Amino acid sequence: MASTDLQSIPVATSQHDQLVNITDEVAGTIPPGFNGMCFVFCQHTTAGLTINENADPDVVHDLLLELKRLVPWRNPGFLHGEGNSAAHLKSSLVGTDVAIPVEHGRLALGTWQGIYFCEFDGPRQRRVLVRLLANGK
Amino acid sequence: MASTDLQSIPVATSQHDQLVNITDEVAGTIPPGFNGMCFVFCQHTTAGLTINENADPDVVHDLLLELKRLVPWRNPGFLHGEGNSAAHLKSSLVGTDVAIPVEHGRLALGTWQGIYFCEFDGPRQRRVLVRLLANGK
Amino acid sequence: MASTDLQSIPVATSQHDQLVNITDEVAGTIPPGFNGMCFVFCQHTTAGLTINENADPDVVHDLLLELKRLVPWRNPGFLHGEGNSAAHLKSSLVGTDVAIPVEHGRLALGTWQGIYFCEFDGPRQRRVLVRLLANGK
Repeated sequence: MASTDLQSIPVATSQHDQLVNITDEVAGTIPPGFNGMCFVFCQHTTAGLTINENADPDVVHDLLLELKRLVPWRNPGFLHGEGNSAAHLKSSLVGTDVAIPVEHGRLALGTWQGIYFCEFDGPRQRRVLVRLLANGK
Repeated sequence: MASTDLQSIPVATSQHDQLVNITDEVAGTIPPGFNGMCFVFCQHTTAGLTINENADPDVVHDLLLELKRLVPWRNPGFLHGEGNSAAHLKSSLVGTDVAIPVEHGRLALGTWQGIYFCEFDGPRQRRVLVRLLANGK
Repeated sequence: MASTDLQSIPVATSQHDQLVNITDEVAGTIPPGFNGMCFVFCQHTTAGLTINENADPDVVHDLLLELKRLVPWRNPGFLHGEGNSAAHLKSSLVGTDVAIPVEHGRLALGTWQGIYFCEFDGPRQRRVLVRLLANGK
């Protein structure tokens, strides 16, 4: 099974802070029977990617709440003129890439895992890239 | 050298918060002479993976201590009924995957680096997946 | 296009806490026309790697400022004799590896993204490894 071209998934966020479940969109890039790795990459510096609970939406609520408490929007020492340094730090804390094994055409996620696009300075039009690399023969 | 099948490593944790050094188990999945990348993936949403100091166990103690201070177990705003939202956030902060170069069959870790499974809501039976992708010829 | 050998990039840091933009050095390891993934790996336990704003240096200032507020250098409960546990935790929070898609020989970074080596206990002589894996045919 060959690898595939670099693919792009648009993500339109509607809130300032938001976790958008993109698992189905990522899974949709994988050909039947594919074995290898799926790499998802966020091209933005005030957003990120994470893998977390896909079932209870209260977990998403709590993640965003606690991130806001950890990294408040304002800090009197911030210099960046756009005023969104908190979003930049949250991006670095959750990270901008995830790598998921693929087996027989399916993401090898745990039962409760979903892939989330993390918006920290929305709403905006965003996009993530997906690259598949096939297992050798 | 071909790549290998997806492999699974069981991790039994014994404490609520614990870092388990799984470097030897990950290294054990790598065939002699293999060149490429080793991808380790945690299938759980209240646990994670990180790479940190392998020598002084006091570093592990201090990492867990400071993570608990940063993300206390209780926050009056948490909604998730299981009450383990702090563990979910720690999972997203350290991340659920690591990618390590492999050269001549050996993980290209630094002298002081070990791979740790991070338990944030144990004790539990956990597992991580390992996928190797070979360098092209 | 075949993959290439594991490459090493030296990074000499000059401050205790510093973000060093290594995007050009990483890009320099990529052969013309290469398609696949670029994996960057930090071999140190008191440093890390992150992808963030490449334009306004005030963002870098703010990131380091807020990380210092989040994880102060001293905590009376720290046991590690070297006294740099805060640097170890920052390493685990930002992570020690990044994975970036490569298309037609170029890193598929967003317009405002740069790759940063994150020094949290410098100044020191550091190095990062770069592994390229090619897309299948």
